[in-house]
Amino acid sequence: MKIGVLGGGQLAQMIARAGLPMGLEFVFLDPASDACAGRYGHLVVADWKAAVDDPVLAACDRITCDFENVPAATLEALGRKVPVRPGPRAFEAAQDRLGEKELLASIGVPLPPHAAVSTRPDLLAAVERIGLPAVLKTRRLGYDGKGQRVLRDVEDLEPAWAALGGHELILEGFVDYQHECAITVVRAASGELRFYPLSWTVHDEGILSLAIAPAPVSSALEQSARSHVQALVEVLDYVGCLTLELFVKDGELLANEFAPRVHNSAHWTIEGSRTSQFENHLRALCDWPLGETGPRGHSLMINWIGSLPRVDRLLSVPGLALHDYGKAARPGRKLGHATLSAESVSELRRSADAVKPLLDPQTASLLSTEMAGLV
Amino acid sequence: MKIGVLGGGQLAQMIARAGLPMGLEFVFLDPASDACAGRYGHLVVADWKAAVDDPVLAACDRITCDFENVPAATLEALGRKVPVRPGPRAFEAAQDRLGEKELLASIGVPLPPHAAVSTRPDLLAAVERIGLPAVLKTRRLGYDGKGQRVLRDVEDLEPAWAALGGHELILEGFVDYQHECAITVVRAASGELRFYPLSWTVHDEGILSLAIAPAPVSSALEQSARSHVQALVEVLDYVGCLTLELFVKDGELLANEFAPRVHNSAHWTIEGSRTSQFENHLRALCDWPLGETGPRGHSLMINWIGSLPRVDRLLSVPGLALHDYGKAARPGRKLGHATLSAESVSELRRSADAVKPLLDPQTASLLSTEMAGLV
Repeated sequence: MKIGVLGGGQLAQMIARAGLPMGLEFVFLDPASDACAGRYGHLVVADWKAAVDDPVLAACDRITCDFENVPAATLEALGRKVPVRPGPRAFEAAQDRLGEKELLASIGVPLPPHAAVSTRPDLLAAVERIGLPAVLKTRRLGYDGKGQRVLRDVEDLEPAWAALGGHELILEGFVDYQHECAITVVRAASGELRFYPLSWTVHDEGILSLAIAPAPVSSALEQSARSHVQALVEVLDYVGCLTLELFVKDGELLANEFAPRVHNSAHWTIEGSRTSQFENHLRALCDWPLGETGPRGHSLMINWIGSLPRVDRLLSVPGLALHDYGKAARPGRKLGHATLSAESVSELRRSADAVKPLLDPQTASLLSTEMAGLV
Repeated sequence: MKIGVLGGGQLAQMIARAGLPMGLEFVFLDPASDACAGRYGHLVVADWKAAVDDPVLAACDRITCDFENVPAATLEALGRKVPVRPGPRAFEAAQDRLGEKELLASIGVPLPPHAAVSTRPDLLAAVERIGLPAVLKTRRLGYDGKGQRVLRDVEDLEPAWAALGGHELILEGFVDYQHECAITVVRAASGELRFYPLSWTVHDEGILSLAIAPAPVSSALEQSARSHVQALVEVLDYVGCLTLELFVKDGELLANEFAPRVHNSAHWTIEGSRTSQFENHLRALCDWPLGETGPRGHSLMINWIGSLPRVDRLLSVPGLALHDYGKAARPGRKLGHATLSAESVSELRRSADAVKPLLDPQTASLLSTEMAGLV
């Protein structure tokens, strides 16, 4: 079977790494000729719109995405030739922060306060209703903290409006959460579901910095996350892996957003579960049996953003598995990740201590806080 | 760093799969244009002799082999340009069954009875001394049961001599062993050593069929295997992974042979250890810190020889990780392997029962015997 992937970044790369040993072949479509997945298959250098008419993609058995902003219309058109999994509906919902929230609300998933903002008077009314601090975001095309402004007091309104006004926006109430977390589920076309354990996630300036799994949460909280994400994939009749990001506030969950694809918060599943999210995404796409999603010990994932430490220093950390994506270094760019695996929390703590000198001070401090909270 | 690999088969493929996420790049030299490692790097299609003058190999930072019959002289010549690890000496010893045995004997490793055979009178004298049954083998270029004949009684002598006479031969006493096993060690240039747990190995017509690890052996036996393989890598001043195959007879170990490379009996380390043999081989080559070699649960590796079962049936087996090498099917050819991982022996037993219907009757029967002996 041949899998076409729209987008040739690290997610596509890890999908291919999981799929090649299962006998799958890969085609990637990406606008960049140096797309890092390219070495794992055939790379078609083209923009998203060209995907619809690309003969190489049309000859694939399944199509999937490593990027959530592929236009839903493109997926719709491709889907008339080749099964596209997950399908356009999930992308359509995830691409519009307002539509996403309306969908989540419609299936009973609790959400932070939010309001649509198209005009300046909308903004003032929304601030009036929701209060400050709040976050003003573009409804479309924002990711990794791009296209958003935090409003702490009224003086922040004008510069935020100057930066973002003119786009369709959404104001989201600032959630005074104790933790962020994420749950990844894989769903087969048959409706079969398997949940990965919840991950603690830690963001820095809107970009995922750390993930710890399994998150040390009550079974009631885990169950609540599962039922939210289950309702979501069922209403979307979703096939593949999906991640729902959530806030934990006073022991309750509030949904943040979801990603209709494999997700950074579940990269730890490569070493930390018997079947990685990448393998299970492909198993679902190909109508193959889903694999086990239980944890193997305790995992800590660290993103390398902008630069990678020296490989010999990284490999001196016990239990560390390195994933260098082979991308050219650029400030703010995700260049790789590492997963620290351990049999116990105390062993994980020792590995975390060993990796700390390799982190920038901000990440090291976030890691210390997380590890202190781990039981 | 760029790694040159002589040979582009599945071992090279798995070396590359381990190395790419550590930021390494790969060049393979293989006489076959469809060498299965090719997709993971740059493939130079040429014979071994051409390696010496190949400019792409000369530009590598390290050279290693996925094939133990690369001429030692080729490695010697290459080693004057690029560090070749492991070095020619280990290959020279492993390529000659007699030299191999003499080396092992010189460091005190117990061996089955054996004798050099060049002439017909040598053969008769050797049979007289060692007795029957015995195995007559070519001293060079034999692997996976090729170039050998079992002598059960005197009537087997003439056909065996007709087939093999004219080559330099060795007669090896037939060992009435209870088990075969293998131990893999990785050694750094600094002399640092890490041992993987001993694997039970099961061969069928000279080809590895199954491996189970960790083998349920006494710590005395494990320690004895370690000291044998340690003596071997130290006398060779070896760098990288090496596997020593052994017989267990009446609670004692007798050496069979060693392979100066990563080895089929340790493929289970991909899922069953925190650092695979492939990753540790590369860490040693690159002078990077060695990784942990302890077991993660219990592993059972099954080779797919000649044909592969349907992927959807394979993936229905709990805890099964598939490694399809992407090679064209041919009788007797290793096309892939699968590793079944489990937390406990009883869980492994359930997975083994689930995989049995996918095996040919002979392998299924060997597996039943092995699992019955597992405690």
